[in-house]
This record gives sequence, C-alpha cells and structure tokens, in this order.
Amino acid sequence: MRPDDARHMLRALELGRRGMGNTWPNPAVGCVIVKEGTVLGEGWTKPGGRPHAETEALAEAGVQARGATAYVTLEPCAHHGLTPPCTDALIAAGIVRVVAPFSDMDPRVSGRGFDRLRTAGIEVETGLCVDEAEDDHAGFFCRVANGCPLLTLKLATSLDGRIATASGDSQWITGPETRAYVHRLRAIHDAVMVGAGTVRADDPLLTVRGFDVPRQPVRIVVSRRLDLPRDGNLARTLDQAPVWLCHGEDAPEETLQAWQALGAKLICVPLHGRQVDIAALMQALGAEGLTRVFCEGGGELAASLLAADLVERLDLHMGGVVIGAEGRPALGALGLDRLSEAPRFALKSVRQIGDDVVQSWARQRRQSHA
Amino acid sequence: MRPDDARHMLRALELGRRGMGNTWPNPAVGCVIVKEGTVLGEGWTKPGGRPHAETEALAEAGVQARGATAYVTLEPCAHHGLTPPCTDALIAAGIVRVVAPFSDMDPRVSGRGFDRLRTAGIEVETGLCVDEAEDDHAGFFCRVANGCPLLTLKLATSLDGRIATASGDSQWITGPETRAYVHRLRAIHDAVMVGAGTVRADDPLLTVRGFDVPRQPVRIVVSRRLDLPRDGNLARTLDQAPVWLCHGEDAPEETLQAWQALGAKLICVPLHGRQVDIAALMQALGAEGLTRVFCEGGGELAASLLAADLVERLDLHMGGVVIGAEGRPALGALGLDRLSEAPRFALKSVRQIGDDVVQSWARQRRQSHA
Ligand SMILES: NC(=O)c1ccc[n+]([C@@H]2O[C@H](COP(=O)([O-])OP(=O)(O)OC[C@H]3O[C@@H](n4cnc5c(N)ncnc54)[C@H](OP(=O)(O)O)[C@@H]3O)[C@@H](O)[C@H]2O)c1
Ligand SMILES: NC(=O)c1ccc[n+]([C@@H]2O[C@H](COP(=O)([O-])OP(=O)(O)OC[C@H]3O[C@@H](n4cnc5c(N)ncnc54)[C@H](OP(=O)(O)O)[C@@H]3O)[C@@H](O)[C@H]2O)c1
Repeated sequence: MRPDDARHMLRALELGRRGMGNTWPNPAVGCVIVKEGTVLGEGWTKPGGRPHAETEALAEAGVQARGATAYVTLEPCAHHGLTPPCTDALIAAGIVRVVAPFSDMDPRVSGRGFDRLRTAGIEVETGLCVDEAEDDHAGFFCRVANGCPLLTLKLATSLDGRIATASGDSQWITGPETRAYVHRLRAIHDAVMVGAGTVRADDPLLTVRGFDVPRQPVRIVVSRRLDLPRDGNLARTLDQAPVWLCHGEDAPEETLQAWQALGAKLICVPLHGRQVDIAALMQALGAEGLTRVFCEGGGELAASLLAADLVERLDLHMGGVVIGAEGRPALGALGLDRLSEAPRFALKSVRQIGDDVVQSWARQRRQSHA
Repeated sequence: MRPDDARHMLRALELGRRGMGNTWPNPAVGCVIVKEGTVLGEGWTKPGGRPHAETEALAEAGVQARGATAYVTLEPCAHHGLTPPCTDALIAAGIVRVVAPFSDMDPRVSGRGFDRLRTAGIEVETGLCVDEAEDDHAGFFCRVANGCPLLTLKLATSLDGRIATASGDSQWITGPETRAYVHRLRAIHDAVMVGAGTVRADDPLLTVRGFDVPRQPVRIVVSRRLDLPRDGNLARTLDQAPVWLCHGEDAPEETLQAWQALGAKLICVPLHGRQVDIAALMQALGAEGLTRVFCEGGGELAASLLAADLVERLDLHMGGVVIGAEGRPALGALGLDRLSEAPRFALKSVRQIGDDVVQSWARQRRQSHA
C-alpha cells in the first residue's frame, strides 16, 4: 500500500455509491485513475448498469492513463458480456497498478479479472477498505450467493413499538426530516416493497420525491389474489415508476389481465399455506435481477420476512411519542417461544434526524448474549 | 463573567452530582472556592442532605477563603433550618464573589440568599450553566413546584417494543453492560419503583449492586391490597434498603401489620377506580421528601403513570432482537384515540452501551409536529 491509496479508494467508494439503486442487476462500482498524485479520471457504473465505472474513468483520463494506477471498488470484469471486459480496457490504456478491496464474488469474474491483469504485467493490490466495500456491494453479493436480493426492513414506530393508534391514526409518528430521509433510502434501493394491507389502507405512491433520481425504484406489492384498488395511486402512476405485483397461483385471470393492461409486471409465486411463499418470492425477485429491496411494511409482511429469516438489515425510525398497548404493533406474530430463538441484530449506526432517532441494525447469526 | 468561571462552575456541578440520589429531601449541590486561580476548597451535599456543599468547601478552604470566589450550583440558603444558613457562612468566611446558575425555586430561599449576600457587599453573578444545573436539580425543583418527585420511567425493550415473549421469557433482551448501567441509574435516584405485577412475577431485589453507594435507594411497590410474597427478596432484604409499600385504603389490616413488623413503611393512598390513585401516590411520595423516582415497570404501572402525565423522563434501553406481536408489550393501554393526544418526548441523549441502544427522552408539552 502507498500513502494515498486509502484516500483514493474512499473516493472510488463514494463515486460507486452514486449508482446504488440504479445499476441493478449490475453492481454499483466506482473507479478513480491517478498518476503521480493527480486524479486523471473518475467514473461510476451508470444507470442500468452500463457503461462500467472503469470505462468511464478511463475515458476521462484519455491517453494520460498510461502509467497510472486504477482504484476500483470491485474486481474488474474479465468476461465478454454485452461490452468488452474492463480488464482488457485497463490493459489497453496502459494502467500499471490496480488497487481493489477484494475479489468479486460473481463466479464469472472471481479471481479471473485479477489473473488477467497480472498476466499482462499489472501490479494488483487488494485488502483496502474491505468493510466499506462489503457493505456497499452487500446486495450484489447476496444475490450472487443466495439468489435473492438483500432485504432492508424499515419500521417507523413510537417509543413503545407501535405504528398507529387503535383507530389507525399514524400521522405523524416520525417528523418531516425523517420522512424525507425515507425518500433518500428508497433512492439507494432497486425496489420498494409493501404488503397488500398497506396498499389497501394507505394507497401509497412509493416513489422517490423531493429530488431527482436517475431511475425510480421498482414498486413491489405482495398480494395473493391481487385484491388491490385499480384506481389507486400505484395504478395511476405506472408511467412514473414500474409496479411489480407478486401474486399467488390462484389470482383471478381477469384481475391479472387488467393489471397487465395497466402496465404492471406480474410475478407468479407458489403458495405457502394460505399466503404467497415469501422465500420463493425473494428468489423470484433475485431472478429478475434485483439486488437491494427496501421493505416498508406493513406489520404482517414484515413478520413473514423476519420469520423466514430474510431480513438482513433493520432500519428503525423512532419518533418521541408513546401510544400504548391498544396501538397497532410494528410487527405481526413471529411464533417465538424462547428469547434465544428470536432473530438478533447488531447495531450498525444510530443517529438523530430532526426530532427522531434513526437506528440501523444488521442481522447477526451468532449468539452475542449468553 | 471571568475567563475561568465556566470551568469552575462545571466542576461544582460535577461535585454536586455525587449527592444525586442520596441527599433527599435536600438538593444535591456542589461548591468550589477559588482565589487567584487556585482551588482552595471543594464540597458537595452529604448523604441525608447535610452538611451542605458550601459548609464543606469553606471548611476545606479554611482562613484562606477570605477574598475568594464561591461557585455554587444553587442559590445558598438564607433560612435557619437545622443548621445556620449558608449565606451567613459565606459572609463570615470573607467570600467576596458568589457565582451561581440561577435563583433557587424553594420559596424559603428564592432571591433571599442572593439579597443577603449582596447586602453584605458580596458580588453575585448568575446565568452560568443554567441548562446543566436545571437538569441536575430537576427533581428538587419538581417537588418544590408540583409537590411530587421527578419521575423517570425506564423501558427495556426489543426493537419492536416488547419486554418478553408470550411465555414470559425476558432473559435477556439487553446485554450485561446495559443491565450494569441500570444499577448506575438506580444509584442517582432517591427511590426505585415497580408495580405489584413485577414483584409477583420476578421477585426482584431492586438494590444497587456492583459498586458502593452512600445510601441505597428506597424500594417502592404499588399494590392496592398488598398481595405480595412476604418471603420474597424484598422482605428478606429489609435490612439492606428500605421498602415502602403504597397501598389502598382497603388493604387488609393483618397484611399491613405483618409488613410493618418486617420493617416496611406503609403509605396509604386513596383509590381511583379499582386501583391506587397514581397522582395521589406521587404527591404522597413528594410529601415523604422524595425528589427523584426511577420506575422500572411493569407495563401496567408504566401506562398508569403515562396516562396521568406523570412521566418527565423516559429512558429506553433497546436490545437488538425482535419478538413479534405475541410478545408482552412494554406499555399497557393508554386509551388514546388520536396521535395528537399521545404524550410527546424530546430526545435528550442517545448512545450505544455494549450491544444495545440507550435513549433518554424528556416530556415535551408543546406540539412539535404539525
Ligand atoms: N408506520 C409505518 O412504518 C407503516 C408502514 C407500512 C404500513 N403501516 C400500516 O400498517 C397497516 C398495514 O399492515 P398489515 O400488517 O395489515 O398489512 P401488510 O403487511 O402491508 O400486508 C399484509 C398482506 O399482504 C399479503 N400477503 C401475501 N402473502 C403474504 C405473506 N407471505 N406474508 C405477509 N403478507 C402477505 C396479504 O394480503 P392478500 O390477502 O392480498 O394476499 C396480507 O393480508 C396499515 O394500517 C398501514 O397504515 C405503517
Ligand atoms: N423488561 C423490563 O424492563 C421489565 C420491567 C418490569 C417488569 N417486566 C415484566 O412485566 C411484567 C409485570 O408487569 P405488569 O404490567 O403485569 O405489572 P406491573 O405494572 O408491575 O404491576 C401492576 C400492578 O400494580 C398494582 N397497581 C396498583 N395501582 C396501580 C395503578 N394505579 N396502576 C397500575 N398498577 C397499579 C396492581 O396490582 P395490585 O392488584 O396488587 O394492586 C397491578 O396489577 C412481568 O412479567 C415482568 O417480568 C419487565
């Protein structure tokens, strides 16, 4: 490692994050080209996943790239896809050193990108900013390893874990700053997902609003028989952002056709008991190319996801209010008896946003409390 | 103000906090005597409320106090109680300047201490560290203004606001560091309070353990007919810390006598419906001299206190676990319909302790969300 390596890698990670939520099924990669301390080119994966970060950065650097170091947040691809591999572009540009956090987990790439670079005489260094890069690429890695997207569950609750009063009043538990932050979170995910109960109760839009995004996240609704309003906000705004309806095998043909005519995408999922099989659903979303899904509830869908151990991140947005036991719970039943069976999470971050506390937790599979 | 005033006042506040939880019914005051930049004496209110901080600091400074400045965290007393007033001691010692955050709210003192000092030719300055001092003396002020102690409610919950599984398993939601921190919290309160349900279910000790305290907090149990085990941990440890039982007018005479014989103090409180009147109870505790009470649940008592708007501070200790809707709720019913009627709290602090998140909220009486 050289003195400035960390700084340039952090910059490459920062650039890479610009692609979060809009490069799927590809990873959101960042790249910086540096020669003798001068940054010659910067790039990140473009919306839809192409061009790749390396191509963009090399284009900006031009002929000056000869003799330079390339910082990339993931192993450059070595396979011929729709575009020539990035390894070849780096070699052709005369790059002499490549710094990356670690190997790609994609079996088409893993190790082979670095091999190809080394064979061409390029020095390859790994091991820098591993934690940050793992976090940024967690969705992409999850899909490669498990076939399903990384799922983040958001709960917006009172201090006593309620999401509404008994009469259903939920405006507002969290403040305007936190609600604006939710739009930022939507924007860095490939898709936003809710249960049919939430659509029936709230008729939400589920789009990113308040700032521009290169690509609106997909809006996913889970409903066995598609018992959903066809004159609601989702149906009305199919031109603004895609709607994917995940339904059971027994959804009425007529309903399917009506939604198809409106422009929604239909994803048929096997049933598990009386509901859509949630694990099969996540596999289907992975097969569609999604890497990062943001679930905004409601309580029943959230409980299904937790019970099936599909929740990797839990974002808890708490407002400074208490509602009491008659209020609606944030989570449905999980069917747990012993506390030792309960899903455990490790704190990733906690901060104040406006008047609220926003916590981010990551699924922890080892036991931490004795 | 002079350059070092803030530093000395912060030190006086720090000293004053040593008395928190053990000086009731008196406030926990700190005092520093400084001359030409040299600290000559330090003092704080001693367990039981006497000697006062000023007396202690003056004793340490001795004859050198002549010409010095006294930093005190509360207006020195001017009335003759069991000891001569501190104002007279400061005058007699030759103090030339007194710096304090603000006037005392105790009507026996308010303004009169400063008047007496000024009449004796001492320069008096106020306005320093007002927020810190208000916070430290909040319990004392609450009792003076409202007749009842400041109540802090602690809830130890899962991420979804549960305190146990359906079967009652609650070991452990929070980790050992947070549970040790609870003992720190007990130690800075005059009393620890729980509902009868918690005593019947958990047979708790409610003492401060793991470090020495000058005075164990009083242990308060609320139970209409004192339907409590007389061979449990509380009864067994009456020599270690006081137990106060707050009961209704219809508690059986025999039960009252049995507890009295064991050494418990009995506080009779009027009934409100079928339960002990919680507002009357708090007034009774104020009349007994308590300034800071720490309520550790359970859910039913916590809900009564919240519904009666008696909770000034809410401490939320969250462990990284989810339990689901069948779990036991942290709070009982509050009887709220609209969210606008729900008690609101403002964040005072949030931090990580061990693997948990510990939040401190203060009752907010103005509306902050539109
Ligand atoms: N404060 C917040 O953060 C927040 C967020 C979201 C929602 N909410 C509130 O939560 C309430 C809605 O929550 P909810 O719990 O009733 O409904 P939900 O979780 O949004 O939706 C549950 C519905 O999803 C469908 N579903 C299909 N397969 C499923 C599976 N495997 N697991 C779970 N659900 C499956 C079922 O409808 P089908 O019969 O159509 O299949 C089921 O009734 C609303 O009052 C809303 O306002 C609050
Ligand atoms: N995780 C935690 O932080 C935590 C903390 C504490 C407790 N817990 C759990 O909570 C459970 C006990 O909670 P709980 O809600 O059943 O009982 P609770 O709140 O501890 O006690 C309620 C009892 O207090 C008495 N009471 C008298 N006047 C009252 C009033 N005005 N308001 C409320 N209560 C009054 C009543 O008993 P009488 O009939 O005798 O008057 C009532 O049944 C246990 O399972 C315990 O393990 C958990």
